[in-house]
Amino acid sequence: MRAARYYGKEDIRIEDVAEAPCSEGQVRVSPAFVGICGTDLHEYLGGPTFAPTSPHPVTGDTIPITLGHEFSGIIKEIGQGVEGLKVGQHVVVQPTIYCGSCGACNCGVENVCYNGGFIGLSGKWGGLSDSVVVPANAILSLPPSIPLEIGALVEPLSVAWHAISAAPLKPESTVLVLGGGPIGLAIVQCLVAVQTKKIIMSEVSKSRQRFAREFGAHHVLDPKTYDLVAISKELSGSDGPDIVFDCAGVPASITTACLAVKARGTVVNVAIWEKEVPFQPNMLVFREAQYKAVLGYQRKDFQAVIDNLANGRLKPERMITSKIKLENLVEEGILALINDKEKHVKILVEVGAK
Amino acid sequence: MRAARYYGKEDIRIEDVAEAPCSEGQVRVSPAFVGICGTDLHEYLGGPTFAPTSPHPVTGDTIPITLGHEFSGIIKEIGQGVEGLKVGQHVVVQPTIYCGSCGACNCGVENVCYNGGFIGLSGKWGGLSDSVVVPANAILSLPPSIPLEIGALVEPLSVAWHAISAAPLKPESTVLVLGGGPIGLAIVQCLVAVQTKKIIMSEVSKSRQRFAREFGAHHVLDPKTYDLVAISKELSGSDGPDIVFDCAGVPASITTACLAVKARGTVVNVAIWEKEVPFQPNMLVFREAQYKAVLGYQRKDFQAVIDNLANGRLKPERMITSKIKLENLVEEGILALINDKEKHVKILVEVGAK
Repeated sequence: MRAARYYGKEDIRIEDVAEAPCSEGQVRVSPAFVGICGTDLHEYLGGPTFAPTSPHPVTGDTIPITLGHEFSGIIKEIGQGVEGLKVGQHVVVQPTIYCGSCGACNCGVENVCYNGGFIGLSGKWGGLSDSVVVPANAILSLPPSIPLEIGALVEPLSVAWHAISAAPLKPESTVLVLGGGPIGLAIVQCLVAVQTKKIIMSEVSKSRQRFAREFGAHHVLDPKTYDLVAISKELSGSDGPDIVFDCAGVPASITTACLAVKARGTVVNVAIWEKEVPFQPNMLVFREAQYKAVLGYQRKDFQAVIDNLANGRLKPERMITSKIKLENLVEEGILALINDKEKHVKILVEVGAK
Repeated sequence: MRAARYYGKEDIRIEDVAEAPCSEGQVRVSPAFVGICGTDLHEYLGGPTFAPTSPHPVTGDTIPITLGHEFSGIIKEIGQGVEGLKVGQHVVVQPTIYCGSCGACNCGVENVCYNGGFIGLSGKWGGLSDSVVVPANAILSLPPSIPLEIGALVEPLSVAWHAISAAPLKPESTVLVLGGGPIGLAIVQCLVAVQTKKIIMSEVSKSRQRFAREFGAHHVLDPKTYDLVAISKELSGSDGPDIVFDCAGVPASITTACLAVKARGTVVNVAIWEKEVPFQPNMLVFREAQYKAVLGYQRKDFQAVIDNLANGRLKPERMITSKIKLENLVEEGILALINDKEKHVKILVEVGAK
C-alpha cells in the first residue's frame, strides 16, 4: 500500500509499504481525506521535532514514520474483541497517543500525557496511507449526513472546541481572537456555533480577514491599523473582552491579550511558543485576570464537533481551500501551504477510500 | 494630633496636624495598632510610587500623606446617616479606596479599581495618626474576643485569604508556597485554617523557615538545597502540587511555580513584579495549567479573617515580632524591617487608642 513517510527535514517520500496486521482491540481504517497541519509543515521545514529520532516511549517507533493525523476514513477490518463498530462504517480517528500511567494521565489529562504523541506523528502508522490500524477507542462514528471530507476537519475543529470549552464562555460574552490561522478561524466557527454575542478577530492578512468575516466574526481588525487594546475595550461596551484567545503566540499577542482582557477576564492560550518571551505578570495582577493554557483535545471535544456538524451549527466547508492527490503531497500540499499560506486555510489530501 | 506623614523618599515626619472633620456617612476612628507593610518600606526606600505626587483621582490629595493602612482602632465619632455602629466599638478598617465608576469597578472588582488606592497611602489620612476619618462602609466590627493588636493583622491576613479563595482549594490539596515573607506566612496560616492536607513552603531564610514551621507548614524547604520541582512532585504523591502560590515574584519563582504545578493545576500569583521577566508559556501549555493573578482583597475577605480569628482557626499572634511607639516609627519600625528583615514578620506601631 502507499504511505507518505517522513524521514527528516525536507524529506517526505511516498512509498510502497506492507500493511500492519489488525490485532485484538484494533480497527483497520482506510483513510478518505487527510488534512495537512501546521505541525506537518514544521516537521518538514525544521524537524524532526515531534517525529521520534529514538524509540517513542509509547509506540516504540523511530523515523521513518507515516504522516497524517487529521483524517476521516472507512472501517475495513475489525480486530478481535472490538464491539459496536462495523466494516464499511464512516469514521473519524482521534489521534492522541498516551501512556496511561504518567502524572498527567493519572490526573485524567491524557491530552498532555508526558510520554504522548499522535497517530501520524509519533509512530509507524498515519492517515496519509491506504490503510492504518488504530485502537478501537480512537474511533468516532461519522453520521451519514456528514461527508467524509468534512470529517477530515473534525480534528482542527476539536482543537478549537477544546479551547472554547476551557473558557468561562457565556452567550453574552465578548471575545477577542488573536490570529486568523486555521485554529483561530476554527475558534471563530465554534464561537458562532455556541452563539457568542460578539466575536472580534485580529489578523493582518487580508485573505484571512475575509475568511474570518465569512465564518461569522462580527468585527475583523488589522492590528497594524488599530490599537487592539483600546478598540476591543470600546467594542466590548465594558472593561474589555471577557475572553481573549491567543492563537498567535508572539510577544505582541500575549501583551495585547493581557492588556485587553477585562477585570477578572480570561486569556486562553492556544499557541505553542517557539521561545520564551518578555512578560510582565502585573498586566494580569492589576486586573486580577487569569491565563489558561490548553493543548490538543479529548474524545468529548471530537464528539461535540461531530454533534455540531450534524445539527448544522458548524459549517466549515469553506475551510477546505484545495484538495490534492497523495502523490502530490509535497508540491501541492506542504509547499503550497508554506509558499502561499494566506490563500489557504486547509488543504485536504484525497487518499481515496470509498 | 500626631500623624506620620510621608513627604517622599526617606522622608517621613511625625507632625502635629489638625483633625479632619467627620462628615455625613463617615466615622472617626482612633487607631490602636498599625502594622508596617512592605509597601511602606518601598515608598520609604524608592518612592513616591503609590503615594500621589499629583492629585489622586479619588482622594484629590497629593503628598504629604499620612501612612498606615493595616490597622485596628476604636470608634470615636459617628457622622450623620451612619447606622449600626457606635462610639467605643473596636473595629478594623478595610482601607481600599475605589472610584466606583471605572471598568474594574463596573465589573465588581473594586479591589483593582483603575483609579483606586488605599487609606494610608493615597490620601491625607491614614492609620498612623491619633485620628482618622473613614467611610462607614470601610469599617468592620472586631468581636470582643479578638484583641486590638490582633486586629491590626486582619489586613495582611486578608491578602492571604483573598489569594487562597481564588484557588480551587480542596481539603485534600497539596499546596506549594514560594516565599515566606509576611504574605507567604499568612497564606500558610490561612491554608492551615481551612485544613489543607499538605502545605510545602519554599524559603531561603532560616528564621522565616522557622516561622513557616510554627505556623503549620508540613514541609519547609530551602530552594538552594532542594530541587523544588522534583521534591514537590514527590511530596504531592501525584503529578505535583495542585496549587502553587508565588509570593516571591522573581524569575526563579515563576519558573518553579509553572514547572512544579500538576497537570490542570493552578498557579496563583500574589506578588507585585518590579519588572518584566523571561517567560515560556509552554510551561503552562504542556500541563494545561492556569495562572491566576490576585490583588488586594475585598470586604468579604476581611470578614472571613475576622470570623476565623474569632473561632480560633487563625492564630497569628506570633506574626507580631515587635511593638513600637509612633515616635520611633522610622528607626525601630521602617529601618528595623529594612536592616533586619529576617528577624521580623510584622512590626506593630502602638498608636495608643484606648
